Amino acid sequence: MRLKLNCDLGESFGAWKMGLDDEVMPHIDQANIACGFHAGDPLVMQKTLALAKTHGVEVGAHPGYPDLVGFGRRSLKATSDEIRALMCYQMSALDGMAACEGLTMSYVKPHGALYNDMMADSSVRAAVMAAVASYHRPIVLVLQGTPDAEQHRAEAEQYGLKLSFEAFADRCYDDDGKLLSRTREGAVHSKEKMLAQVKQLKETGTVTSISGHTLNLYADTLCVHGDNMAGVQAIQTIRAMIDSEEC
Amino acid sequence: MRLKLNCDLGESFGAWKMGLDDEVMPHIDQANIACGFHAGDPLVMQKTLALAKTHGVEVGAHPGYPDLVGFGRRSLKATSDEIRALMCYQMSALDGMAACEGLTMSYVKPHGALYNDMMADSSVRAAVMAAVASYHRPIVLVLQGTPDAEQHRAEAEQYGLKLSFEAFADRCYDDDGKLLSRTREGAVHSKEKMLAQVKQLKETGTVTSISGHTLNLYADTLCVHGDNMAGVQAIQTIRAMIDSEEC
Amino acid sequence: MRLKLNCDLGESFGAWKMGLDDEVMPHIDQANIACGFHAGDPLVMQKTLALAKTHGVEVGAHPGYPDLVGFGRRSLKATSDEIRALMCYQMSALDGMAACEGLTMSYVKPHGALYNDMMADSSVRAAVMAAVASYHRPIVLVLQGTPDAEQHRAEAEQYGLKLSFEAFADRCYDDDGKLLSRTREGAVHSKEKMLAQVKQLKETGTVTSISGHTLNLYADTLCVHGDNMAGVQAIQTIRAMIDSEEC
Amino acid sequence: MRLKLNCDLGESFGAWKMGLDDEVMPHIDQANIACGFHAGDPLVMQKTLALAKTHGVEVGAHPGYPDLVGFGRRSLKATSDEIRALMCYQMSALDGMAACEGLTMSYVKPHGALYNDMMADSSVRAAVMAAVASYHRPIVLVLQGTPDAEQHRAEAEQYGLKLSFEAFADRCYDDDGKLLSRTREGAVHSKEKMLAQVKQLKETGTVTSISGHTLNLYADTLCVHGDNMAGVQAIQTIRAMIDSEEC
Repeated sequence: MRLKLNCDLGESFGAWKMGLDDEVMPHIDQANIACGFHAGDPLVMQKTLALAKTHGVEVGAHPGYPDLVGFGRRSLKATSDEIRALMCYQMSALDGMAACEGLTMSYVKPHGALYNDMMADSSVRAAVMAAVASYHRPIVLVLQGTPDAEQHRAEAEQYGLKLSFEAFADRCYDDDGKLLSRTREGAVHSKEKMLAQVKQLKETGTVTSISGHTLNLYADTLCVHGDNMAGVQAIQTIRAMIDSEEC
Repeated sequence: MRLKLNCDLGESFGAWKMGLDDEVMPHIDQANIACGFHAGDPLVMQKTLALAKTHGVEVGAHPGYPDLVGFGRRSLKATSDEIRALMCYQMSALDGMAACEGLTMSYVKPHGALYNDMMADSSVRAAVMAAVASYHRPIVLVLQGTPDAEQHRAEAEQYGLKLSFEAFADRCYDDDGKLLSRTREGAVHSKEKMLAQVKQLKETGTVTSISGHTLNLYADTLCVHGDNMAGVQAIQTIRAMIDSEEC
Repeated sequence: MRLKLNCDLGESFGAWKMGLDDEVMPHIDQANIACGFHAGDPLVMQKTLALAKTHGVEVGAHPGYPDLVGFGRRSLKATSDEIRALMCYQMSALDGMAACEGLTMSYVKPHGALYNDMMADSSVRAAVMAAVASYHRPIVLVLQGTPDAEQHRAEAEQYGLKLSFEAFADRCYDDDGKLLSRTREGAVHSKEKMLAQVKQLKETGTVTSISGHTLNLYADTLCVHGDNMAGVQAIQTIRAMIDSEEC
Repeated sequence: MRLKLNCDLGESFGAWKMGLDDEVMPHIDQANIACGFHAGDPLVMQKTLALAKTHGVEVGAHPGYPDLVGFGRRSLKATSDEIRALMCYQMSALDGMAACEGLTMSYVKPHGALYNDMMADSSVRAAVMAAVASYHRPIVLVLQGTPDAEQHRAEAEQYGLKLSFEAFADRCYDDDGKLLSRTREGAVHSKEKMLAQVKQLKETGTVTSISGHTLNLYADTLCVHGDNMAGVQAIQTIRAMIDSEEC
């Protein structure tokens, strides 16, 4: 199966621009589109959806905690009911707007602290799964691929939910298959290491951890970043590598 | 055709409660549900939708300007593109959440200043019509029934849009068929006058203006208010009158 | 020293009313006024300040996390810099508006989850203390009176900060001098137990815990609630008790 | 009297950066700092104030309508009471935070649509003047210098208010001394015309209108823009011109 490239897009807000969406969109497979709670606004969402359509890119909801000033990066102790409601609202908003552009929202990937809380806290993960499962049609939930993937699959099955797993191109993994904290040296790969990690992941389904261990890591999709031109160039390089691998 | 009763509901927000939704819902036909921009939040929307389902009430989106502190009652000079986007966003959010509850959103009625601007300003009305027409499936737009109804129908036809007209039970009309400003004496009817106005509207399709003229006024639905117990009782009385008229 | 009564006021927001401010204000000594981040808005703040002035009530800032929909009751993982900035902003806003009404803001009491986090997490408490200490003139910080009061005083001294301690009239204490969780039976006192607790606190500086232990509890001020008429009546009764005790 | 340079700064918000504040601050006299309603947040305000202090720049409040997604550029039909309250709140917030940095807020300049409404609508202007006059200490209000300056001074005198007038370096004036609408050709000057306009204003107190008329235009301060490097370079050129003129 071909490894997809996903990228967080539509993160501008009102007069504030963020991300090189125009430059990134041609090179990715999946656009995770902010839904207005941590970033994005109705006009930005429309433009991002139209751009995705132009480039034939699959669209997914990228819901976050309601924390605009914190960009959804700060953990918020929301109840399961609140998480379900805020996810359904954001998924619905993007879904309907996508349909207005002739597109179909096919997956949801929580953003920032909601994503981290989902990975770290089983009760948040249960709330997220319940939210996606309660949607009125089947939607794939994107989680981080870790050594706990089997457990996550088992959890998802209880909700009749289909999962997709993502890996990170530019982040170093610790020995537990988690991302090494950004505060640690070596947390973010050089371009060379990034490309090597993608190649290894693609060919062997493994990554090499910070201490040199080889970890099995299943991934359907690779998270890439288009915040600046260096990021865009990295995406292009990864794109070329993945495409050539397929020959 | 039976005159329906519509009411603005789901106007609570977070810890703040507004409106007697539980008391009102059993007596109305259509619930105009706030979508989070001027009132309502994801949890409130879910609860309001569930309540509507329990009572078999039709649900519609009640989108407003993004002005929570002003409750969407203050005119905001938004562009046509902005109006289209903010309406699509709010309609989509409610539509998806309704579907999650097994309901179908069937109409949209703009709220507060957006409603007033739509009635008073043809460019805002065009933006609103374009927004509803751009939705991915047909949605009825609710406007105020006035002597301009034919013109509004002609405008709507250009967008392939179906309209529904509403009248007000408790508000006095001026000679132009507009609502008498609340700052004018006699703007809000006593209970007796309100019931007489409903009866006249139902039987003859007319209202009597402040200066005694008889005005033709087409109405599909009657806007009622459930802010307090007096409002709820008025709704019950109107309900009984309309139901008995049908015998 | 006379035990003061403090109450959270100014918690309305836009069209949404909360709390019986008019009824409560005549009976209290200190009004903790919301500053717009979790509740309150500029107009509400002005009206609450004017009401406090009418009744000669001391005013304090009641800053919260920026979480309107959650009423500031949900813990938010903010950095120390963010906590300092959001507190300074809210304190400044209330301080200036109080000065415009001829009042002097004399203290600050964090709200909801910010208060709870401050009591439970020493790093949040350090951030709060640093925030108040960085204000451009001396402001008293209100904390919950607990068996850790001496430690809190020592911490405050490092910031050159003056503390005030509050106790709760209607809440039962656990054996550690913390409030018994609201999920536990007996967490909220009956009116009789509430009055007995106030009397004991006033006369002996102690409270009786859930399991019957007598705990020393220093308190400068008593937190009371005016959400409904029962609360207002409780405040009046406590007021009468405290005033008579002073004879 | 020396013509000052003022610039809107502190317009970043959370994760979104706007404006080249670091590059602009060394070259201006007055920083108009956003207060959180249309742009800016507590952390951004603190950093902007600290930067102003470093460069000895005077600080003023730059309050706007509560419209983050519209960047305060959309007219909002607020009542006089609402305008007074939202201005006092924002002025207070900046004032207190400035004092925490050892600075004194000395003036207020409304932002965007609030500024435009103030210039175009005498009732909004009255509300703005009342707001500034109600502040607890004297604060200068910045208005646009137009042929109506005398009338504006007369209005301000009724409030005991001191005004400061600003002119625009890069904008062409119409024959009424208003800014030519941006939708009109020639609305924004080339760099040469901008410098010529500044020179003429400095030396003769006049500007040349779009149709060639010479208009008297009193100005205390010149509004400059630092959105991009071209703007920063223009500011530096204007700065050099003004400074040399003074020799």
